[in-house]
Amino acid sequence: MNVEIICVGTEILLGNIVNTNAAYMAEKISEAGLSCYYQSVVGDNEERLLESIKTARKRSDIIILCGGLGPTEDDLTKETAAKSYGRKLIMDEESRLHIEQYFAKKGTQPTENNWKQALVPEGGRAIFNPNGTAPGIIMEEKDARLILLPGPPSELIPMFENDIFPYLKELTPGVILSKTVKICGIGESKVETMIADLIDAQSNPTIATYAKIGEVHIRVTASGEDKKAARKLVKPIIQELKDRFGNYIYTTDESETLEQSVVDLLLANKLTVSCAESCTGGMLSSRLINVPGVSDVYKSGFITYSNKSKRKLLGVRKSVIDKYGAISAEAARDMAKGLAGVTKADVCVSVTGNAGPDASEDKPVGLVYIGCCIKGRVSVTEARFSGNRNKIRESATAAALSFVRNNVLEYYSRITFGTDEDN
Amino acid sequence: MNVEIICVGTEILLGNIVNTNAAYMAEKISEAGLSCYYQSVVGDNEERLLESIKTARKRSDIIILCGGLGPTEDDLTKETAAKSYGRKLIMDEESRLHIEQYFAKKGTQPTENNWKQALVPEGGRAIFNPNGTAPGIIMEEKDARLILLPGPPSELIPMFENDIFPYLKELTPGVILSKTVKICGIGESKVETMIADLIDAQSNPTIATYAKIGEVHIRVTASGEDKKAARKLVKPIIQELKDRFGNYIYTTDESETLEQSVVDLLLANKLTVSCAESCTGGMLSSRLINVPGVSDVYKSGFITYSNKSKRKLLGVRKSVIDKYGAISAEAARDMAKGLAGVTKADVCVSVTGNAGPDASEDKPVGLVYIGCCIKGRVSVTEARFSGNRNKIRESATAAALSFVRNNVLEYYSRITFGTDEDN
Repeated sequence: MNVEIICVGTEILLGNIVNTNAAYMAEKISEAGLSCYYQSVVGDNEERLLESIKTARKRSDIIILCGGLGPTEDDLTKETAAKSYGRKLIMDEESRLHIEQYFAKKGTQPTENNWKQALVPEGGRAIFNPNGTAPGIIMEEKDARLILLPGPPSELIPMFENDIFPYLKELTPGVILSKTVKICGIGESKVETMIADLIDAQSNPTIATYAKIGEVHIRVTASGEDKKAARKLVKPIIQELKDRFGNYIYTTDESETLEQSVVDLLLANKLTVSCAESCTGGMLSSRLINVPGVSDVYKSGFITYSNKSKRKLLGVRKSVIDKYGAISAEAARDMAKGLAGVTKADVCVSVTGNAGPDASEDKPVGLVYIGCCIKGRVSVTEARFSGNRNKIRESATAAALSFVRNNVLEYYSRITFGTDEDN
Repeated sequence: MNVEIICVGTEILLGNIVNTNAAYMAEKISEAGLSCYYQSVVGDNEERLLESIKTARKRSDIIILCGGLGPTEDDLTKETAAKSYGRKLIMDEESRLHIEQYFAKKGTQPTENNWKQALVPEGGRAIFNPNGTAPGIIMEEKDARLILLPGPPSELIPMFENDIFPYLKELTPGVILSKTVKICGIGESKVETMIADLIDAQSNPTIATYAKIGEVHIRVTASGEDKKAARKLVKPIIQELKDRFGNYIYTTDESETLEQSVVDLLLANKLTVSCAESCTGGMLSSRLINVPGVSDVYKSGFITYSNKSKRKLLGVRKSVIDKYGAISAEAARDMAKGLAGVTKADVCVSVTGNAGPDASEDKPVGLVYIGCCIKGRVSVTEARFSGNRNKIRESATAAALSFVRNNVLEYYSRITFGTDEDN
């Protein structure tokens, strides 16, 4: 069975608001094991809305219409849906009572147009809305089931969780299981090349790659009779990906971010971290600090954009800046080492580079050096990024997270291997 | 003329990402004076994409297809668009060269599948993509013009600004002139209340508000026979808005950001700035450092997430933390003052707060204090934000930029007024 989402609202078409409802519902639909092949947005316009419903009825089993259930004249989703199916609108007594009570509680009087929210298309079922006056509606028509939902996320989301999601799950024939493998430190094309054979051979499960800044996600999706059958299809592919990408995989948890995996790795090894940033200017620390619980690992950060602050706060040597420039492997090394001296953190990361727009010190735009000092031992890597200033800084930040991760893994795996040999 | 947006990507259909591209483009289309009646999302699937293009060709004058131009096998937007119009794909020499140079610059080799990104449908025109390897494409077909754009916002947005927006504007009958007034320091509902009469009376020009994090943009759009006529309609409204909002307006320049206006203000007053960040964790410095030429004003930054680092690096008094907590006006004051002592910057900003997810020090999630020390004089403000951890941090960062701006304006306008009186 497949579900189609139609969001109704001129404010979405004008770009006044971002359509977060669609993303929310799409994720839940997928979680319920149903497919969603189409999403669309149409304004509060009867003709175009009728056309959209007509198209959807031909190609989808379930249509979710959201928005346009308000009390104003603009709001015509319910009226149009009823028209499309040739249904009259009938007063729903429970909904009418709810509106009455809702206004009484607020101490105000409903206006005449509020009562139209209690009308339900003949044969339809009203879904209680504890957070507003527009009930949801389910119409179980022959060609396609129709679900009408209020537009405000504060009304839509609770209604979806409580009523719509369980309803959709009951309709699911089998189960769709999706698992994501998240990779850092290799580009999308390289990843794609490394799994070209798997992608060529795919049918169930399907395999797709998604490029993010400094990361690639591979999604493996299987459908099966039940959860167990779907899991059985997904599992060997995930194992194969683990074999091929090894430590480049930072997580197989859908909700885990790269910064979170770095923080977890530091926590697991009881390590503290400090950052010294030039071109990234706080972005690296900012990503780490977005992880709840980071206080157990994060010591402090320095933003040393000027050469003077690099020297004063981190003790970068004047001779290094004079000879190699502030955008150099040597400067990144001095920054990381100096940071370790000042903060005594176990892991000290430094980033220096040219984010553009102009070449500086005769160094090209996009050239970045990242240093990592773990307990006195410093590694430095050079990278080149393209794009505008912000893109280069975001790429450098992601690369720094990957670099820290690799360095910690390398340093500690060496110790682990040693321990293994001892056993 | 009307424009239809089709976003291609299974990750949108699965709800993995929110479709911010559609909102961005919808806003720009409206700004260009064109109508958008439909937006849709379809997966990376040839059959369904063909169907969507077919429907759009019947009802729209211009179709924007975005996403699915990557190098992987999943990416089939261009191939499908070419098929829909019966066009062959031809190697575009300039795009091929750009890919070659792009990889050379990164010091890596393109893989075989990268070259397919340089293919362009016969009769189509490649649009240079400085931020990635997939060119945009414009096809001027008879029934509907087709515009293909890369999906990543870091590539799509600059391309839209530089090439697509001017292209769309040329297609608009008459002249549409749009001017944006950007406001910080007041919320959207307050702004709306303050201009309710203008909005009620609007026809030409139209007036629309857009809420951003920590900012509100008011767009005034007029259509006229020529530029002069349109300008004549826009000008008095802009003047009216200036009269009503005064210093809350930080710019009327479409491309200027809040951080840029702050950097410009500091530059104009020959002031240097330093930041001490707790909950924002580098985000404030990161926004400032995204402004090219910031090196003339930015001295240095400290990320003092822990109480220990607040004390050690900034000299926040133990008695203050013990008595009021690190999330307090008093701590923000000590941070700003301490920062001034260490860095000697003219303007020293501090941010401390609880970004969640848990209450800490018995302080509620979302409570933030911002300090600003200008030449020894410290002001502190308290604010409360809602949303998840990242949203709260973004809101606190925007509020800190506004607060710095207000403090600098206040401090220096006082001096300016003094001088005026002397004359």
